[in-house]
Amino acid sequence: MDDIQHQFVKNILAGGQANPKAAGSAFAPSNIALCKYWGKRDAALNLPINSSLSISLGDLGTRTELRIRDEGIASTSSRRAVEAMPSSLDLVYLNDALQSPDSSFAQRISAFLDLFRPMLGNAGFEVRTENNIPTAAGLASSASGFAALVMALDDFAGWGLERRKLSMLARLGSGSASRSVYDGFVQWHAGTHPDGSDSFAEKLSFQWPEFRIGILELTDAAKPVGSRDGMNRTVETSPLYRSWPTQAGRDIETIRRAIQEKDFSALGQTAEQNALSMHATMMSAWPPLIYLQPESMAMIHQVQRVRADGLEVYLTIDAGPNIKLLFLEESEADVAGSFPGLKIIKPFEEVP
Amino acid sequence: MDDIQHQFVKNILAGGQANPKAAGSAFAPSNIALCKYWGKRDAALNLPINSSLSISLGDLGTRTELRIRDEGIASTSSRRAVEAMPSSLDLVYLNDALQSPDSSFAQRISAFLDLFRPMLGNAGFEVRTENNIPTAAGLASSASGFAALVMALDDFAGWGLERRKLSMLARLGSGSASRSVYDGFVQWHAGTHPDGSDSFAEKLSFQWPEFRIGILELTDAAKPVGSRDGMNRTVETSPLYRSWPTQAGRDIETIRRAIQEKDFSALGQTAEQNALSMHATMMSAWPPLIYLQPESMAMIHQVQRVRADGLEVYLTIDAGPNIKLLFLEESEADVAGSFPGLKIIKPFEEVP
Repeated sequence: MDDIQHQFVKNILAGGQANPKAAGSAFAPSNIALCKYWGKRDAALNLPINSSLSISLGDLGTRTELRIRDEGIASTSSRRAVEAMPSSLDLVYLNDALQSPDSSFAQRISAFLDLFRPMLGNAGFEVRTENNIPTAAGLASSASGFAALVMALDDFAGWGLERRKLSMLARLGSGSASRSVYDGFVQWHAGTHPDGSDSFAEKLSFQWPEFRIGILELTDAAKPVGSRDGMNRTVETSPLYRSWPTQAGRDIETIRRAIQEKDFSALGQTAEQNALSMHATMMSAWPPLIYLQPESMAMIHQVQRVRADGLEVYLTIDAGPNIKLLFLEESEADVAGSFPGLKIIKPFEEVP
Repeated sequence: MDDIQHQFVKNILAGGQANPKAAGSAFAPSNIALCKYWGKRDAALNLPINSSLSISLGDLGTRTELRIRDEGIASTSSRRAVEAMPSSLDLVYLNDALQSPDSSFAQRISAFLDLFRPMLGNAGFEVRTENNIPTAAGLASSASGFAALVMALDDFAGWGLERRKLSMLARLGSGSASRSVYDGFVQWHAGTHPDGSDSFAEKLSFQWPEFRIGILELTDAAKPVGSRDGMNRTVETSPLYRSWPTQAGRDIETIRRAIQEKDFSALGQTAEQNALSMHATMMSAWPPLIYLQPESMAMIHQVQRVRADGLEVYLTIDAGPNIKLLFLEESEADVAGSFPGLKIIKPFEEVP
């Protein structure tokens, strides 16, 4: 599996000569899928069963800086922390805090860097990651995280890779990271080749300044099952999953058309039905995979109620308990009134 | 549509000579499906898309008495109540209370009696229905209700119909009523003929005295959408419903085998997955059809937790918010301890 990934990276970088700078840095936005990625056809290359379509969250995401690990560390307390972990090849900071090399966060980053190390002198790296995503908002930080990391690597190495290739590399870290190398609306083409060479994301060149996303932070309970294991269980055991690829294929076309025509009703309806259908395939798995909590259910009913009362708002839910709302600027005041504590994001107005 | 139903009843009764008694009476148990009926292939004849399998609830159900309407009513208050509704052909009592002829309860019964009236002198009836099902326990009273009604009619008219025919007649009132003409485990064969002649229920000749059902009364909120409309919406709009008939076909065979082999784990797992999958098809409908309430979700998680802790208990849920538990006698004390307020039913020990 590692060999397959190494080979994939080598192919992508073929011909690109590294010309390292002192440091590389990049920002990548978080994204929310309107047509969800759910189910892998290849685990090693993170190839999806269905294409997906997302909207990036403007200036909410991850900023990453990366340099060759330098032993000359300024402050005494930092030096002590570093000396306490001699076996660590990389130094990984999250929001200024040095992470234990045993943490899954540091391990995923180091494993990802392993794929690139042979082309960069097999060095250890110092990686500084800053997330400005609201804590526990149920926004996937791995999407923006791996996208920012691969873009920072590219900046550091001077490869000058095109976005499509950055998308394919980010995909190896986390499937949805393939979409976070762009802002705005983004489509990740599932592709069909077993080698993964046609599975990458593309930006859709449509702006929709009135588009709003509302984040409802309902619970910060840790997920009982990670989404990687969750999708595998669903694909293997859910009888209803058989209908999912067809539905996703139809939904993504409807959403693309809705974006193009600025038909918000069609977009919202399809995105909500797509998200609930993804959760439906999980409910049908064995053992049942239920990310929705009682609070989620209350909010799902609340969205149905206010929509029945004439307020045009739709919901989407990732593999977790929290609800995201989709609406337009014209409904902003009413939606905020109906959902206290809502954090509102303007994905086309707050682009960094 | 009425013509089709009238013709169907005429065919079933063909050759049976009515020989009415003064009154007919019958009891029919409520039933809980282990493999759910969800989706019609014919609305007029109530023909299902998939076969279903249920367990009857012993002495919990409906007792119905039926006689030709007699104007000589004993008490003055009853007489006044009857005189206040001169346009009513039938007098319908539910748990001793005369029902308004405008009520959906009385209207469904009268419409059902219309199918039989031509063979019974076109008379009005007095129908007395007693339900001993816990109020708001989420147990379908229409299943036991129409089964008891058709059996009381048969008793009254002296047709001496075989159970299979009673099952087909009860089906016209409510699909799941086809299963309530038997106790124990019951399978309703979907059939394939457009005329409905091979769509009837049969008793499975297996006893399982240790089998227990627990009723959790979570909420008595009225259903926002009746199950008839709910299934139609699901069939028409849920992309995941396409996989349901295949799943139900496989589940019913697994459950039959599990009953035969007394393999409770296989039965419980399949019944739970089947019920959650039915709700999953609804969630995928548009507008989303969500019978599960926050309380339901809390209880679904609670069942997963106690099962992970080693207690063998499974759940099933009909088209409503309430949860039913499936377990064996040996787990009765532990299950009762984990789910306060549980009403426990012994379907093979409390047969009337």
